[in-house]
Amino acid sequence: MTERSVFLHDIALGEAQLAFTTATKTIENERVDDLALADALDRVTARAHFARLSSPHYHACAMDGIAVTAASTVGARETEPRELLIGSQAIWVDTGDPLPPGMDAVIMIEQVDDRGDRVAIRASVAPFQHVRPIGEDVVQSEAVVARARRLAPADLAALASAGLPRVQVIAKPRVAIVTTGDELVDPSTEHPARGSIVDSNGVLLAAYVRQYGGEPVSFERVSDDVEHLRATLRDALATCDLVVVNAGSSAGRDDHTARTFAQFGRVVVHGVAIRPGHPVVLGVASGLRPIPLLGIPGYPVSAAICADLFLRPLVERLAGRDAADTREIDARLTRKIFSPLGEDEYVRAVAARVDGELVVTPLRRGAGVITSLARANVMLTVPRFTEGLAADTIVRVRALRPLASIERTLLAVGSHDVAIDLLAGELAAYRIELVSANVGSIAGLVALASGAAHLAGTHVLDPATRTYNERAVLRYGPTEPVALVRFAEREQGLIVARGNPLALFTIADLSERGARYINRQRDAGTRLLFDDLLQRAGVPSAAIAGYERIEFSHLAVAALVAEGSADCGLGIRAAALALGCDFVSLAFEPYDLALRERDLADPRIARTIETIASPGLRAQIERLGGYDMQHAGQVRVVKPKTASLAT
Amino acid sequence: MTERSVFLHDIALGEAQLAFTTATKTIENERVDDLALADALDRVTARAHFARLSSPHYHACAMDGIAVTAASTVGARETEPRELLIGSQAIWVDTGDPLPPGMDAVIMIEQVDDRGDRVAIRASVAPFQHVRPIGEDVVQSEAVVARARRLAPADLAALASAGLPRVQVIAKPRVAIVTTGDELVDPSTEHPARGSIVDSNGVLLAAYVRQYGGEPVSFERVSDDVEHLRATLRDALATCDLVVVNAGSSAGRDDHTARTFAQFGRVVVHGVAIRPGHPVVLGVASGLRPIPLLGIPGYPVSAAICADLFLRPLVERLAGRDAADTREIDARLTRKIFSPLGEDEYVRAVAARVDGELVVTPLRRGAGVITSLARANVMLTVPRFTEGLAADTIVRVRALRPLASIERTLLAVGSHDVAIDLLAGELAAYRIELVSANVGSIAGLVALASGAAHLAGTHVLDPATRTYNERAVLRYGPTEPVALVRFAEREQGLIVARGNPLALFTIADLSERGARYINRQRDAGTRLLFDDLLQRAGVPSAAIAGYERIEFSHLAVAALVAEGSADCGLGIRAAALALGCDFVSLAFEPYDLALRERDLADPRIARTIETIASPGLRAQIERLGGYDMQHAGQVRVVKPKTASLAT
Repeated sequence: MTERSVFLHDIALGEAQLAFTTATKTIENERVDDLALADALDRVTARAHFARLSSPHYHACAMDGIAVTAASTVGARETEPRELLIGSQAIWVDTGDPLPPGMDAVIMIEQVDDRGDRVAIRASVAPFQHVRPIGEDVVQSEAVVARARRLAPADLAALASAGLPRVQVIAKPRVAIVTTGDELVDPSTEHPARGSIVDSNGVLLAAYVRQYGGEPVSFERVSDDVEHLRATLRDALATCDLVVVNAGSSAGRDDHTARTFAQFGRVVVHGVAIRPGHPVVLGVASGLRPIPLLGIPGYPVSAAICADLFLRPLVERLAGRDAADTREIDARLTRKIFSPLGEDEYVRAVAARVDGELVVTPLRRGAGVITSLARANVMLTVPRFTEGLAADTIVRVRALRPLASIERTLLAVGSHDVAIDLLAGELAAYRIELVSANVGSIAGLVALASGAAHLAGTHVLDPATRTYNERAVLRYGPTEPVALVRFAEREQGLIVARGNPLALFTIADLSERGARYINRQRDAGTRLLFDDLLQRAGVPSAAIAGYERIEFSHLAVAALVAEGSADCGLGIRAAALALGCDFVSLAFEPYDLALRERDLADPRIARTIETIASPGLRAQIERLGGYDMQHAGQVRVVKPKTASLAT
Repeated sequence: MTERSVFLHDIALGEAQLAFTTATKTIENERVDDLALADALDRVTARAHFARLSSPHYHACAMDGIAVTAASTVGARETEPRELLIGSQAIWVDTGDPLPPGMDAVIMIEQVDDRGDRVAIRASVAPFQHVRPIGEDVVQSEAVVARARRLAPADLAALASAGLPRVQVIAKPRVAIVTTGDELVDPSTEHPARGSIVDSNGVLLAAYVRQYGGEPVSFERVSDDVEHLRATLRDALATCDLVVVNAGSSAGRDDHTARTFAQFGRVVVHGVAIRPGHPVVLGVASGLRPIPLLGIPGYPVSAAICADLFLRPLVERLAGRDAADTREIDARLTRKIFSPLGEDEYVRAVAARVDGELVVTPLRRGAGVITSLARANVMLTVPRFTEGLAADTIVRVRALRPLASIERTLLAVGSHDVAIDLLAGELAAYRIELVSANVGSIAGLVALASGAAHLAGTHVLDPATRTYNERAVLRYGPTEPVALVRFAEREQGLIVARGNPLALFTIADLSERGARYINRQRDAGTRLLFDDLLQRAGVPSAAIAGYERIEFSHLAVAALVAEGSADCGLGIRAAALALGCDFVSLAFEPYDLALRERDLADPRIARTIETIASPGLRAQIERLGGYDMQHAGQVRVVKPKTASLAT
């Protein structure tokens, strides 16, 4: 196959991978580490190792008992025991002892009558019975481990048995990690300036390199000065086997990486039809030895996807490792996914077993949302030239976590509450992983009804009856009986800047003072509450500046108020306190977890309810502020048609 | 559940595991390590971590382009572009820049006409288009990672993004490893005395502890003096979370471990109905805090099985880890297995895909044969109360290696040749794992015929025609065409002690001098050759001392001669040279690899033949001595009924 330089945007993934593999296929890692066995677990042998000693290195007795000559036992039987003289005809031995000279078999102690200076035996034995001959395990000069072997504990033990205290393994490929951008600051920076970005990709890429079997070499952060990047690349090429440059997030800067790569060698690929991860740059530096160059885009999820697709295979090969086994599982997609036609799209998602069936729910897809990757337990791909995937499709997804972890995931889909994090923390001790998706109360009940969630966090006021939750469950929830577990009563009100500079105390104040409001998404309980408050105050929604601007959680609303880009929003007191905002109390409302009544028998659900009612969690939540936990853990059942209440 | 002390031999595995789990279930590991993110990959969080910073911590532009107010764009369209004044109505921004004060949306550069001090746009935009609002990824005070989370690269990046440069993780449980026995010596010991045993279990158990997520703490080897063991246990209990004592191999010593455990606390289990691994001792030390005690038997395979069954779950739990996912696969058993009725038996085996089907061949089962565990790629279990498994049963086996490694395994079953190790070493560079089982030429052909092997090493003399291999292939091999690949011609002869003290030069010398002979197993090509040599010399087999004593490889024969427990054996020159023996040449014979002709199309087979013919391998093999490689790699095809020869 001839090599081609592909200098196009938007080439297909397979083509890009082939071009890069072809361009780097002659690059080998020939450095060797000579290690003590204690340090060599999971490393890969650089050569075959041959036994220095046989094991055992002498004929060893394999039982406690007596050593004899088989010939002297001929004729012994139950009715006619044979007596042997200790010292000449029989010698007491322990397991592991050398077979005494002249003897050729061992009789186990349980089959020997001890008669002082003699023993009696009641059966004859064959030569070499219960003897481990020299080299039974390994013979001197024989290969103990092959070349290219990833060393498991048993391999290390076999090397030790063969008298080899050290082993030569392939050195870990050294992978230079160069992050670039004037705006990058350390995670420890106390108060990062606006416009500065905490460098998380350095941490991300170093961890991936370790996971793939390489040794990350982190270089000092590079400014946007091209000379600085060139100087750092020169250093990296002199000391490393592979160079990764993590661009800042600007498109301009990506081109800059490509141009610099071209100065050190050649660019093989620039731009691949994947999402996220499109602006990747792949090249090879020339010089004394060719060295692969990877320019990885700056958005963290893009960086992670590119690392998996382009960095992993190369590091694994240079480390002499097999590709890690991937686990794929089939699951039912709970929501439809739209996807661009021209690109392979990688979607982070959460899989869980709901009502006996594995279901998978896509997470938010912004390339900047690294938490979507941290929270995902599976990844699914929407291939190029498809427009998306319909809800209820059975999709094959790749597990990012052990299957056991997926199996014990509890999915809470619905309204957001800060206290859910604390509940999740307590459940983790019981190895239950509570994952929550903030979609609002009603969407949560719909998810519960469609078998896409275990729990739906719910606080929906019915304006007609002024009751909470039962009506919404009957209208949007499952057609089977539903248990409503009281989690908390909580204070809702206006989240305002510290000192309440606009003096916002009532709903009417919002329109009167032209306050910039930040709303919640449609069908969120808090939005329904706001609409009710507006109606009762006689304020039309059009009079509220920012009524159409939405966020998906109390904390996100509080963050915008704290930062000053909104003047207020409706939300819970705990969120206001967490972000240092002031709070104007307007209502107290119940926040319940809705679940299928028959799931009360699921031990994970039983544990969840028990934990909600526990004094430890109550105390933690009350400390957040704005919660009344006196009814926490109470269960009432809502039955379709004939709704009944029971505690 | 009440705890019971089980002080019986031979209790069932499940009962033993339950008793030990119950006795240790209140034992927790509460030590915490505070680590930099770079050191925390794969560790498990000791608590939930909450964001110190929001990410982004300001409204960030998500595209390169211009920042505008959405209101100022209303009405812009393709036919009616809107001009905006740079500086007041539009501001140039790069991705990641803070949204300039007063602006609320970004238009990407591709959609902007640059007209110097002005820009023109051709579409209106919505507020917050291409803006990443504060906290889009994570909001200050929100949980970033839960408690009990095994940290993946994305978790570390999420922590960094949230301004958390350090993370608190569960400290690795410290596992004391105490090996006992006067006979133990270091693997580096140059010439271990007879009766000394190279300590490989210390290496084995430390590696397992690391693999399970613990920190091994290796104590100085303990002599057989009980006081010494007691003193070491006291030290271990003072500093570690778990204590493993590895008994010597004697039954007496196991009891000694149990008695000592009883002095420090109580013994919960002594003796479990498993093979290997029966004499395990499980207990709990009392004191300031209870500490689990494991007495693990001395035979290395027993130690490995006990570690997997009893040590792994405890270390994983104390490390806060999930049990590692195990992979199970179904494969056809190529040979029947007999197994004791009363015990769960763990059988090491090699699985490979032969002729499209996964087949599994059990390895030698001695508990002392650690190489059987190193070479195995799967483990199968014969449950208690079954007498064994019939050949051709489909069995479920547990993968010990990645599936990719199993898929690329080539199985060579048949005659032993030293040069096979060198071939395997070369093939490893192509990621082909050549695993060989020494069963003799004819058994190898039978395995080939039954689809249990890819290759059969063959050297069988037909006394009638004095030709090699074709006749045996027709008689014992597959009913389809077979390719015979010439591997080598090699020198066979008498392996004798250095200096040939008995002056053995001919077959007749063996009987005349009463030499102690060591034979090969029935159906081995070398044994058939010996029978032919005896017949032609007119010597009856009964005249050969040791005719019935057998070994399974040339190297094993040479090892016995070198050690002096036999005077001679028939074998190849390379084996004699490897063990420092002298050699009396008697014959030159072809050694071929037989395989199904249609497998010539298998790229692994093609690579194998290419490698056999390569000058590099030829040179290595000729250096062993006694090989003529001039025809190496030549292929001839044997067809049943109408056998034809072709090169």
